[in-house]
Amino acid sequence: MKALKVERLKINYKTLEEFQQFHEVGLPELSMLEDLKMNMVENDSHSPFYGIYQDGQLAARISLYRVDAKYDRYFLPPQDYYEIWKLEVLEPFRHQGMGTALVSYAKSLGLPVKTNARHRSDPFWEKMGFVPVQYNPERDRGESPYVWLPKGVSLQE
Amino acid sequence: MKALKVERLKINYKTLEEFQQFHEVGLPELSMLEDLKMNMVENDSHSPFYGIYQDGQLAARISLYRVDAKYDRYFLPPQDYYEIWKLEVLEPFRHQGMGTALVSYAKSLGLPVKTNARHRSDPFWEKMGFVPVQYNPERDRGESPYVWLPKGVSLQE
Repeated sequence: MKALKVERLKINYKTLEEFQQFHEVGLPELSMLEDLKMNMVENDSHSPFYGIYQDGQLAARISLYRVDAKYDRYFLPPQDYYEIWKLEVLEPFRHQGMGTALVSYAKSLGLPVKTNARHRSDPFWEKMGFVPVQYNPERDRGESPYVWLPKGVSLQE
Repeated sequence: MKALKVERLKINYKTLEEFQQFHEVGLPELSMLEDLKMNMVENDSHSPFYGIYQDGQLAARISLYRVDAKYDRYFLPPQDYYEIWKLEVLEPFRHQGMGTALVSYAKSLGLPVKTNARHRSDPFWEKMGFVPVQYNPERDRGESPYVWLPKGVSLQE
């Protein structure tokens, strides 16, 4: 398996065009497009997305939002953490370790990571060292949160 | 098209067994199963799920969480609202109006409704009278929120 390079994606028309190939496209991407058109962000400014290119084509992506410690309802001590959204590998590029590479990148940033394990993806998250939390309906409202804990970090409650 | 009856689902082993047919199954359902096994909830207690049965079989479901006004970052004036999760119609029952019936039920409860429009489902939500919000990365973190506003309710900001 060749080494997979994870890159921070830049907001430009090419990136937003490539995003259209992904299943999970919605307001965040539309909002970036509008910001670009209205000159509210510069071309090539940083996005919350990271991705892997193959032959110049975006093959996989992940969005990583840094959540402020004051909103932390998961970790002890409460701290900034990353929330993973929109992890997706395009069909022709699956089963080549791209999902693993993107999640490993998130874990390498030194903060706890939270995600919502959807579509029965629990085995993948467990393989990546994530653990399910004790489900709290008020906090988790229908999500299936899985978290990755760096050394010295534990769960609230 | 025959009338579709929306029922509040009861937490029991039959319901949780039927949930296994749905794509979006995770911690919330597992948590209900554990609560039932540990006698932490009574058999047939109410769940946040509503569904439609066909010939005694669960054909479609929706979860409706009532979010407390103190967490409301969407509506003006701030108020309790319903958040829709896990709207899903099983494959053999699609295109019979079940999604519409479930969402209409949510709207009939008299509070604003919020959902996350996933899988390019925007046209469905727009048909149901929902509107996209102005995307706010801090608040919406990668979601594509669509909301339905009852009379006299507007959006924050």
